[in-house]
Amino acid sequence: MLDIGQEIFQLCQRLYPICRSITGNGVRETLSILKEYLPELSIHEVPTGTQCFDWQIPKEWNINDAYVIDPNGNKIISFKQSNLHVVGYSTPVNQKITLEALQPHLFSLPEQPNAIPYITSYYKEQWGFCLTESQRKELTDGIYHVYIDSNLTNGSLTYGELIIPGETSEEIFLSTYICHPSMANNELSGPAVTTFLAQWIKALSNRKYTYRIIFIPETIGSIAYLSKNLAKMKKNIVAGFNITCVGDDRAYSYLPSRKGNTLADRAAIHTLNHQVECFDRYSFLDRGSDERQYCSPGIDLPICSVMRSKYGCYPEYHTSLDNLSLISKEGLHGGYNTIKHAILAIEINEKYVTSILCEPQMGRRDLYPTTSTKSLDLEVKNMMDTITYCDGEADLLEIADQLNLPIWDVDQICQTLLSHHIIKKKTDT
Amino acid sequence: MLDIGQEIFQLCQRLYPICRSITGNGVRETLSILKEYLPELSIHEVPTGTQCFDWQIPKEWNINDAYVIDPNGNKIISFKQSNLHVVGYSTPVNQKITLEALQPHLFSLPEQPNAIPYITSYYKEQWGFCLTESQRKELTDGIYHVYIDSNLTNGSLTYGELIIPGETSEEIFLSTYICHPSMANNELSGPAVTTFLAQWIKALSNRKYTYRIIFIPETIGSIAYLSKNLAKMKKNIVAGFNITCVGDDRAYSYLPSRKGNTLADRAAIHTLNHQVECFDRYSFLDRGSDERQYCSPGIDLPICSVMRSKYGCYPEYHTSLDNLSLISKEGLHGGYNTIKHAILAIEINEKYVTSILCEPQMGRRDLYPTTSTKSLDLEVKNMMDTITYCDGEADLLEIADQLNLPIWDVDQICQTLLSHHIIKKKTDT
Amino acid sequence: MLDIGQEIFQLCQRLYPICRSITGNGVRETLSILKEYLPELSIHEVPTGTQCFDWQIPKEWNINDAYVIDPNGNKIISFKQSNLHVVGYSTPVNQKITLEALQPHLFSLPEQPNAIPYITSYYKEQWGFCLTESQRKELTDGIYHVYIDSNLTNGSLTYGELIIPGETSEEIFLSTYICHPSMANNELSGPAVTTFLAQWIKALSNRKYTYRIIFIPETIGSIAYLSKNLAKMKKNIVAGFNITCVGDDRAYSYLPSRKGNTLADRAAIHTLNHQVECFDRYSFLDRGSDERQYCSPGIDLPICSVMRSKYGCYPEYHTSLDNLSLISKEGLHGGYNTIKHAILAIEINEKYVTSILCEPQMGRRDLYPTTSTKSLDLEVKNMMDTITYCDGEADLLEIADQLNLPIWDVDQICQTLLSHHIIKKKTDT
Repeated sequence: MLDIGQEIFQLCQRLYPICRSITGNGVRETLSILKEYLPELSIHEVPTGTQCFDWQIPKEWNINDAYVIDPNGNKIISFKQSNLHVVGYSTPVNQKITLEALQPHLFSLPEQPNAIPYITSYYKEQWGFCLTESQRKELTDGIYHVYIDSNLTNGSLTYGELIIPGETSEEIFLSTYICHPSMANNELSGPAVTTFLAQWIKALSNRKYTYRIIFIPETIGSIAYLSKNLAKMKKNIVAGFNITCVGDDRAYSYLPSRKGNTLADRAAIHTLNHQVECFDRYSFLDRGSDERQYCSPGIDLPICSVMRSKYGCYPEYHTSLDNLSLISKEGLHGGYNTIKHAILAIEINEKYVTSILCEPQMGRRDLYPTTSTKSLDLEVKNMMDTITYCDGEADLLEIADQLNLPIWDVDQICQTLLSHHIIKKKTDT
Repeated sequence: MLDIGQEIFQLCQRLYPICRSITGNGVRETLSILKEYLPELSIHEVPTGTQCFDWQIPKEWNINDAYVIDPNGNKIISFKQSNLHVVGYSTPVNQKITLEALQPHLFSLPEQPNAIPYITSYYKEQWGFCLTESQRKELTDGIYHVYIDSNLTNGSLTYGELIIPGETSEEIFLSTYICHPSMANNELSGPAVTTFLAQWIKALSNRKYTYRIIFIPETIGSIAYLSKNLAKMKKNIVAGFNITCVGDDRAYSYLPSRKGNTLADRAAIHTLNHQVECFDRYSFLDRGSDERQYCSPGIDLPICSVMRSKYGCYPEYHTSLDNLSLISKEGLHGGYNTIKHAILAIEINEKYVTSILCEPQMGRRDLYPTTSTKSLDLEVKNMMDTITYCDGEADLLEIADQLNLPIWDVDQICQTLLSHHIIKKKTDT
Repeated sequence: MLDIGQEIFQLCQRLYPICRSITGNGVRETLSILKEYLPELSIHEVPTGTQCFDWQIPKEWNINDAYVIDPNGNKIISFKQSNLHVVGYSTPVNQKITLEALQPHLFSLPEQPNAIPYITSYYKEQWGFCLTESQRKELTDGIYHVYIDSNLTNGSLTYGELIIPGETSEEIFLSTYICHPSMANNELSGPAVTTFLAQWIKALSNRKYTYRIIFIPETIGSIAYLSKNLAKMKKNIVAGFNITCVGDDRAYSYLPSRKGNTLADRAAIHTLNHQVECFDRYSFLDRGSDERQYCSPGIDLPICSVMRSKYGCYPEYHTSLDNLSLISKEGLHGGYNTIKHAILAIEINEKYVTSILCEPQMGRRDLYPTTSTKSLDLEVKNMMDTITYCDGEADLLEIADQLNLPIWDVDQICQTLLSHHIIKKKTDT
């Protein structure tokens, strides 16, 4: 059987060639592949022109081919070679123009001469090509044939939604985006890891929470989704994660919610503290993904991000260098595992209260050494420490932080204590 | 036209020779000069014997001349040379006495041999002369003629008050004192800077706040003023500054209110953080001016001090060395400018709330680049950051601190956002 | 007259030889000696089998003699030489057995070869001997005669209680334990120091608080006491100290209550900050004495520990090396003095409010220099600082911390201010 990191990597490989954008068939193709993994995934379409808060769903964009032929007749830029070569949402064009007239339509990165940049122009109609700075420097004067076979039509924006019910209607929310063309860390790692997290959640016995998992185009997708679902999301969501950039192997990163101390933040920090060697803590001011919407005033959802190398903070970001060689099965596995443990931390984050006044007599329960000596066994100490903080006020995350122990271990202790009727779950009634 | 620092300096020069005390004609002369600058300044007299909380207005003190003639007939100490030579509130005397009998009436500073100290005895009747330690050491035995032509009579304590109305009855309070004889940083800088601040406030269009500005004798003056005006001051004042020691060019200083986190404190710290290179933070335990009254229990006004070199913390303090050469137009301008910006910070310290859920679409308002690339322009980032913190809870000082931007810049951003209806003022109704 | 440290030391000497355990005649003998010092001490018996929360009072244990005779007929281990030689609560035995069969009944410390360990087995019936590792190594094969003349019978657990009434029914609680055999710092220092603290409290004029002082066996004793007295303890106790390990001269230690910021904690930290040069701050996770019960969930009493070298943190702990040479009259005096001052801090921890608005005129009360000069006298400054923080909200501990002065000094200032009617006690009505 495959290692989970390898499985996620294989999904990335499969999704990589597809030309995605915020609308169009690339999104639909992507979602239909994900549906193979998650048959319950429901696909939704929001028509062009639909008002979503301050925004309108734009025209749907599709593209068949695009290229540039140089004065010598050579096809020097080809969409079929890399979908990054075309500015996202480019209008159709079929012209012969001078290099001088072409230049304003070309995009390259002087400081990264071998990278094709990722450029889009969703809300202003224009066309353009992206190429490496090296290639651009070699262009000679003459007449170029530019060709983009795209169309912008009334259509719809497509997204996927998966609701996995739990014991309560309270929800944990996972959001990731499926609008980036052929790039790996940002962003095939997000939907690929989320797909396997969803499989794990489905298999999680005794789920306390209901899970709302969405695969959307960034920004306009989250805004559209929020505009349709805000009331129930505000009512039900207790914590959530925006899942992006979870594929490489160089760093772990945490970006807080705007409020900074929500359940999601607490679970994320606790998990990173105990699961990984070190991680970078960003400020909400460093935000750049859908937490821009989820944490905006009036929306205020308890959502943060646990990432590997954060968008904007690694050199390959938003270029052709963010390819499959940048991510790895180890990197994906680490991203998956960290978010999984953060989710688990929320699932087990109960409040407990002792059912016994003063310390329980552990000896007669065979939970304590009968012969006193100079020091307590560490395991016994952890058990006694857990009991003494089970006051019905602190939740398990607070207790684990107090004890400087991983919450998953403290939960094991609590299960033992529950079975011995030493503590009980605090019920609010 | 004159530079504002130079204008303030010229006012200091004009006021410098006058012999001021906590009562008497020196105060009246000073206020009548200030009234030339601020015609609306109203002059108030509080009669001797008036009870003011625990205090009584003392007798009024006036002095015409004073000197000491040595055994050789030389006038060695003369009030006309320096009004610091006479102990403030000295009773009249006209005697020939031995040096031995004179000594207990002489005051000098062994550690500052060339400084005449500033000494007063308001509440115990006595007479005395102040001189340099150098001069004192040269005194020879013999009979001295001591002469003080002063009088202590029933009269009144004089102060000036200026109310500049604004849009609301909520007040910003400025207090400075006019009871010090010929000294410059402490204290002509305070009334001189305050005079020009009052002129600036009068010219400030759309003042939100009403301004209560008083020129009083220190301690007894603030106590007298509080005893007459406490109820409305407690009701109306939202922030205030005690203005003293704002004339030299060596340091900036901040002394908090007793509570330490009032609006005045927040505005002062924010302003100092963004307007000056560094500043000294004192404790309320270092207080020594009228915040002793304004922040006393039961009074509890939100008042702090923004200073240049703080009283008691520079060697020339309360001596003849605190003269016009110690202050400068640059120093006074710095003091003026800092308090002006702190006042402005309070004037613009609104709460805003977004009028749009999720991020607004900046592009169609021409507030956003239409072509995405690797990084946001800093100006756009500051605008988006401002929007995301406009939640109707944080005031602009909090938002500016969060963004680590000067509040005056964030206010400019908010004006743009207001004009585009992206945010609106939070009204409590 | 004896120095108090010497008196406490002499009490330790007198109590040292007695073989104490959690029950039995050693406890009764100890309490009867303490009653000589504190005639009002009442002795209580809780019968074997009494249910105390999760625990039952065990059988009473008494012992007359115990020894081991080696194959050569030498008495190599003798209870009469050191009562630590016998495992506490050993069942009676009178057998001849091989060394191999004896070994599981022997306890020694390989890393402290010259120390007899202190071992007990209260809740599982067994017998055993403790000896030094050095001695154990010299044991040769052969038949040993082991003899323990003890008995475990239905009897009772004995404790002492002393209530010293004060002006109010609010209580300060002192708890110490009398269940350890011949060891000095842990634990004769606790009951000896507590005895002299009780004498001092009795002599303390105008005690505000009622004092509840108990001499109990550790763990089962505090649990038994709590099970009988919890309701009134929770109602009345405002602060308390668990008194243990207060006899040596090497360190001061502080162990917080579980909540960490109770009145007891605040008084303890303030006292240690001002009375001793340095001290070790432990975490509640380092607990190991009766605060385990007093601070357990649902009990939640405001109790912390001020110690010299903390149990478990010095090498002689729970061995024969914790003998009278480890403690000293200076060490005991320091322990006594620190807790005494912490108690005093609570007794004087009033809230005061100024009876005068603005600063009082100190001069006419002869509390202020009449001639102003460059700096205030420190004494006057402390007085003015005290007045300005008497706002009826801060208690004297907060004020003293704010002023960085010992509370006992600030109280002296307040007494002067009270006598001049400048401040008054804040009454809640």
